Amino acid sequence: MTQSDILLRELDDSGILRLTLNDVGRRNALSEAMLTALGGAFTEAGRDPLVRVIVLAANGPAYCAGHDLKEMTAGRDGPDGGWAYFTRIMTQCSGVMQGIVNCPKPVIAEVTGVATAAGCQLVASCDLAIAADTARFSTPGVHIGLFCSTPMVALSRNVANKHAMEMLLTGDMTPADRAAEIGLVNRTVGTDDLRDAVMEMARKIASKSSMTLATGKRAFYAQREMPLAEAYAYASQVMVDNMLARDAEEGIGAFIEKRAPQWQDA
Amino acid sequence: MTQSDILLRELDDSGILRLTLNDVGRRNALSEAMLTALGGAFTEAGRDPLVRVIVLAANGPAYCAGHDLKEMTAGRDGPDGGWAYFTRIMTQCSGVMQGIVNCPKPVIAEVTGVATAAGCQLVASCDLAIAADTARFSTPGVHIGLFCSTPMVALSRNVANKHAMEMLLTGDMTPADRAAEIGLVNRTVGTDDLRDAVMEMARKIASKSSMTLATGKRAFYAQREMPLAEAYAYASQVMVDNMLARDAEEGIGAFIEKRAPQWQDA
Amino acid sequence: MTQSDILLRELDDSGILRLTLNDVGRRNALSEAMLTALGGAFTEAGRDPLVRVIVLAANGPAYCAGHDLKEMTAGRDGPDGGWAYFTRIMTQCSGVMQGIVNCPKPVIAEVTGVATAAGCQLVASCDLAIAADTARFSTPGVHIGLFCSTPMVALSRNVANKHAMEMLLTGDMTPADRAAEIGLVNRTVGTDDLRDAVMEMARKIASKSSMTLATGKRAFYAQREMPLAEAYAYASQVMVDNMLARDAEEGIGAFIEKRAPQWQDA
Repeated sequence: MTQSDILLRELDDSGILRLTLNDVGRRNALSEAMLTALGGAFTEAGRDPLVRVIVLAANGPAYCAGHDLKEMTAGRDGPDGGWAYFTRIMTQCSGVMQGIVNCPKPVIAEVTGVATAAGCQLVASCDLAIAADTARFSTPGVHIGLFCSTPMVALSRNVANKHAMEMLLTGDMTPADRAAEIGLVNRTVGTDDLRDAVMEMARKIASKSSMTLATGKRAFYAQREMPLAEAYAYASQVMVDNMLARDAEEGIGAFIEKRAPQWQDA
Repeated sequence: MTQSDILLRELDDSGILRLTLNDVGRRNALSEAMLTALGGAFTEAGRDPLVRVIVLAANGPAYCAGHDLKEMTAGRDGPDGGWAYFTRIMTQCSGVMQGIVNCPKPVIAEVTGVATAAGCQLVASCDLAIAADTARFSTPGVHIGLFCSTPMVALSRNVANKHAMEMLLTGDMTPADRAAEIGLVNRTVGTDDLRDAVMEMARKIASKSSMTLATGKRAFYAQREMPLAEAYAYASQVMVDNMLARDAEEGIGAFIEKRAPQWQDA
Repeated sequence: MTQSDILLRELDDSGILRLTLNDVGRRNALSEAMLTALGGAFTEAGRDPLVRVIVLAANGPAYCAGHDLKEMTAGRDGPDGGWAYFTRIMTQCSGVMQGIVNCPKPVIAEVTGVATAAGCQLVASCDLAIAADTARFSTPGVHIGLFCSTPMVALSRNVANKHAMEMLLTGDMTPADRAAEIGLVNRTVGTDDLRDAVMEMARKIASKSSMTLATGKRAFYAQREMPLAEAYAYASQVMVDNMLARDAEEGIGAFIEKRAPQWQDA
């Protein structure tokens, strides 16, 4: 793995990869460099058999401030007023977000501080999220004339319409407890307990069969977009294939024999 | 603007249009006259550059009682038993509801009293809703043999399946606090504080760029119906177009320069 | 009706059919025999004019433990390693779940004890659910290498993505109160009050027009899968047809005349 100063990577021996946003001076903004680092990290982690689950954490008072507005503004130069540049950045950013959804490893956001705009989208794009009770969330683009249209793709797939609309139309901050109530994060814990809570969840997931997790995560997002009958036809086929896989035979056998399973890739 | 006694219109100088259902004797029922007044009001408000945000309020103890059953019953006369009449009314009513969703201005329901059947649908169709803590909601068609099938289109896009089904199958009243829990309204406040709470939210939204609000509202409902990859492709294009618009350049510039933005249409 | 020892049926004179899972020794597992009994019961109940609403209850400490793993394991015998057998079982199980959704009579889960895997799916597939406050829910397939891919079809249509993912990726038990918070059940009551609470809800629904309930339930799930404009066009047509039906004419007439309605099939 390549190391980058703005995105720290730490893999422990239980297969938990900790990615830490570390561009503190820019409030961990999704600059071009950060997007490239994140996109690469999820692609690599998806392929790396040693990685079983991914935690996305951050250093500094801001979890992630979204796009780098100074960089965006500089992109306006040129005869097209920035059209080609903005298109490239938006495509790259949406690709990173979808890279999290499509990554075969479960991803847990460990949210401290403020997650705004595309930073809030990052949390919404993760499979799971635990927030410090001091964390806050917003989609404030409306304050600067730039509606958070790509963040809302992820946000509106996590929370009810009126809750999403309130965040998008007012730009107001949502405190962590409210974020938990509306489904943007799984739950909140005290700041001092956050890392332990995330690690407990991560270790639990890391103890499962990676094949099974990858099968299930892929199927979850795929079936979610299908009508019911199609979703059942698809998921039934996924179950049959899963039954025929070695880890299910081992797991069911171990359960019946009341012993611990031994996964193929563990 | 045309004025109608059953639907009062009041536009303040911050661009907040207050529409007040005012057919108190008929519990603000969605009579043909009311549907025509509402449909016209949203169409006009959508086009009027002076209107930045819309509040939908009501006079009297009922917010809105849904369709006018006496008028509906009178419509049964004629050789087709009412088929053509009912078809026209349902098409008109569904058109008004979609007119709220498609209106480029954000719409906030200010709910006092009881919102039933198509009245509950009206609240569900608004982008945002704040309710007095004494407000109540129901889809009681099942009591009279007429399932609330069109109200459920809006209801089921706001609340989880089992919550929607409980309202639809039992016809029971849902108190305001429960409506907030399940996502039918954003929150509740004491009756005396309702108008202030709604106006505070409305003023906040009215201070934003109308172009940005219109862009975002349209994109919200459009992307919500797309699969994830399509939604991201669409929303990315919306963001690029938004970046190239004058109000985003002004808003981002003002943010970087730490000054208040000056919107094009303000 | 045919009676089966593992699935008890009891129809009272208000039209409430009580189906009770009664394979206590196997924790009410969805064995082939149970799936056949359940599928048959919902098909018959859907056609039986005496049945107005269905309660799905269970005897013993487990509501339903999901698939019968010993039976599944025995199915591995044969040259295809179980492919044909698993395909048949998954198709049958998904058919039973969709049979609940497609049954024209409302179905209420009365949940005591533990509902796991396809047992949790059973609760999610019902239109309504009330749980004892001691009930618990899980999708624990990930513990045995077999992701709960078909249960998640129903689960993810009831609860928000991150809540579904937490249950699916960790396999952890969700207590009844949390299940109510996230929308998997309508509410919880003390164990001693459970049957009364379910019966109160069932009697309320049984007092409505069966034609109206069937119309509304079918339309609910159909419109839920359509884009907004299509949903409104469809639901408007449903409303017109419903208005022209005898029970709506009777129900509306009774309402205007302030008398109790007399349904056609009551």
